Amino acid sequence: MPCSDLNTISAVDFQQRVAAGDDEPAALIDACFARIADREEDVRAWQHLQEKTECLNGLNASHGAALSGIPIGVKDNFDTQDMPTTWGTSYLRSERSPWDAAAITLLRRAGATIVGKTVSTELAYFTPGKTRNPLDYRRTPGGSSSGSAAAVAAGMVPLALGTQTAGSIIRPASFCGVIGFKPTFNTVPLAGVKGFSPSLDTVGWFARSVDDIALAFAVLTASPPPKIEGLNLYGLRVGVRALPLDGPLTVDTVSVMGATRRMLLKAGAQVFELDLPANFDALVDVQKCVMAYEAARTLAFEYDTYRDQMGPKLVAIIEQGLAVAPEDYRAAIQATAWHRREIAKRFTFDLDVILAPSVNGEAPLGHDVTGDPLYCRAWTLLGLPCISLPIGKGIHGMPIGMQFIGAEGADAKLLSIAKAVMLTTQDGSDIE
Amino acid sequence: MPCSDLNTISAVDFQQRVAAGDDEPAALIDACFARIADREEDVRAWQHLQEKTECLNGLNASHGAALSGIPIGVKDNFDTQDMPTTWGTSYLRSERSPWDAAAITLLRRAGATIVGKTVSTELAYFTPGKTRNPLDYRRTPGGSSSGSAAAVAAGMVPLALGTQTAGSIIRPASFCGVIGFKPTFNTVPLAGVKGFSPSLDTVGWFARSVDDIALAFAVLTASPPPKIEGLNLYGLRVGVRALPLDGPLTVDTVSVMGATRRMLLKAGAQVFELDLPANFDALVDVQKCVMAYEAARTLAFEYDTYRDQMGPKLVAIIEQGLAVAPEDYRAAIQATAWHRREIAKRFTFDLDVILAPSVNGEAPLGHDVTGDPLYCRAWTLLGLPCISLPIGKGIHGMPIGMQFIGAEGADAKLLSIAKAVMLTTQDGSDIE
Repeated sequence: MPCSDLNTISAVDFQQRVAAGDDEPAALIDACFARIADREEDVRAWQHLQEKTECLNGLNASHGAALSGIPIGVKDNFDTQDMPTTWGTSYLRSERSPWDAAAITLLRRAGATIVGKTVSTELAYFTPGKTRNPLDYRRTPGGSSSGSAAAVAAGMVPLALGTQTAGSIIRPASFCGVIGFKPTFNTVPLAGVKGFSPSLDTVGWFARSVDDIALAFAVLTASPPPKIEGLNLYGLRVGVRALPLDGPLTVDTVSVMGATRRMLLKAGAQVFELDLPANFDALVDVQKCVMAYEAARTLAFEYDTYRDQMGPKLVAIIEQGLAVAPEDYRAAIQATAWHRREIAKRFTFDLDVILAPSVNGEAPLGHDVTGDPLYCRAWTLLGLPCISLPIGKGIHGMPIGMQFIGAEGADAKLLSIAKAVMLTTQDGSDIE
Repeated sequence: MPCSDLNTISAVDFQQRVAAGDDEPAALIDACFARIADREEDVRAWQHLQEKTECLNGLNASHGAALSGIPIGVKDNFDTQDMPTTWGTSYLRSERSPWDAAAITLLRRAGATIVGKTVSTELAYFTPGKTRNPLDYRRTPGGSSSGSAAAVAAGMVPLALGTQTAGSIIRPASFCGVIGFKPTFNTVPLAGVKGFSPSLDTVGWFARSVDDIALAFAVLTASPPPKIEGLNLYGLRVGVRALPLDGPLTVDTVSVMGATRRMLLKAGAQVFELDLPANFDALVDVQKCVMAYEAARTLAFEYDTYRDQMGPKLVAIIEQGLAVAPEDYRAAIQATAWHRREIAKRFTFDLDVILAPSVNGEAPLGHDVTGDPLYCRAWTLLGLPCISLPIGKGIHGMPIGMQFIGAEGADAKLLSIAKAVMLTTQDGSDIE
């Protein structure tokens, strides 16, 4: 297995090396294709791959741009004008969309090279695709952004786009040992991304460094780069909270959470149990209600046309959603608005960041499930920015991520905290 | 010009006649195509029309369904699997989408016949299409849902779908003298509708009776029919408010508002000036900020690819949006949330409905503009359900609609009020 540090380097570091004359602009794309050639047969991250020569065309034109020379994978539920899209289904297929999804355009505007479409579960729900966990092929990479997480973990690309409606970024990031980031709801344009639940659907992405997450954040929001350097963990107010609180966490998740708390305390952070109104736990069910109700309507065409070809879990959530009374949905939307205000007050007065499990335990064995997004549902419902950091290991040596959750719109602050946490863990604290 | 009452009848009345054996199930579709043949050359409401024989196929299969035998037009920014879509542009075109928009599927599930795609302005913004006002060909029908409003007004279809981001349902409804309804934000699925500003975009529709608006509401939300019968205007708390308050309303709009107030008072309603926090007026600019910021990102592909072919107003809003600082956008989103809560409190304690202008004055002469959505912007931003009722006339005899605005999620109550208002105006009060 050929191994180059170009398969582990961050996009930001690579560009600095190119600027210093230490690497050719095409080197990262070369390394990406070499790694794909080597590992794709096992990992199965890609639904469609562009030709390498096509990817290298236009590299000169993008010279100096923010993402010039950076190969990126995009989940196969983003429309592409130059590649087919299947939305993770056997029954839908578009050879060429009339447009690229807006997020892809923003990446291309910054000079990025979209190397292909990564495997999605069926319509970004629970029916798994063909992808396997690059760290242990017997295990799921998680879903629904399976191929994007696996491609980054396997060293195929430094950055890949996905989407999250329940836990489809944070969960596969944890299972595959990469960083996964879901920004504040409605921060990155969803145009050209197939919807599932419009109150929840959010574009997110995977990377190997927080710097790369931040670089993509600037590009994907068409905004100036966020300043994420130099945050000191000393005095940082960290509220710890699994949501739901009474879920049965695995021993290794509890252990990694404990180690993360100790690391934060050692760095001078204030770490405390985050007390929340008792009905915060109900947000898990509120999220399920909103997701089912909206999916049943959003996927009306697919249900009426392809029900017989759909996975049973997808049929089940649509039928559940049709059975939800409109007044219960309306109550769920109102409850969500209330809880958003409550958590915003906490962030205003006595809280900088929330620490929570990304998912419960290591990636499960087998390829018929993608794991449970339980510990992501409430944070996604609240629209808060979330990041999963690969800072622990489970009993089988597989990665266990920790989820950090910021205030609505405070994405840059969350990334600053994430960067400080990563620096601290790399500087010594061994979290296992 | 052949005239049949089938070109003015409501869908609900037609179905009752079919049920009673007084009309053939195909009669309305027949009458629709006859009227289109007669008037389309002048009105130019349609971007694409299906074949009549195709529309009549399948009519038997839908027998007894809620919209069986009802011909419906759909704005050309909804994806269709069996018709081309142009989004009102010369540069985008899809012969067949991989799906029907979810709203179209819900209509078809209820047995409706989609007869064609109606003209949209360019990407549902301000560059007019070919449609003319059916009541005076020298005038605009309004925009952006130009063809849908004109098709209903011209007696071509009893129902037509559109979308509203600023005032694209309420304004053309007023200009064309039909009922236009924009439900609560995120009530009808937007899947398969091209986005412009995701915090604002809303599916809405046009009809000739409130009963038909309510029937479509049930179908498009996959919900039971709302009960809208028998509301008494006596004691109804009606807050009157143009927003912005200081806009220079035309004499005829002021006159129709005054007549509407008198009609409501005569029916026993409590009618009062709605006092709101002073910064409510700023919501007009907040709406513009949100719309520009989001459009600049949502339409990234179109801007990068087709800028040279775009209308200058569309280019201008995208470039304005790129110049908005992300923190100003975030502040706009937060201000919107605050004002939504404030107006919700009013509706909880001392307000049933708001009366406001739909638009200022009659449809302007000429086809190079579509009118100004000024008096719709704030209500759309707040996500409230709005209905324009064709209850007045201007100085040139053209229609002037009045806008009634309900509480978030109280769409059924708003439709009940609208029905009572229409019955009262038809029962005698002459509003001119």
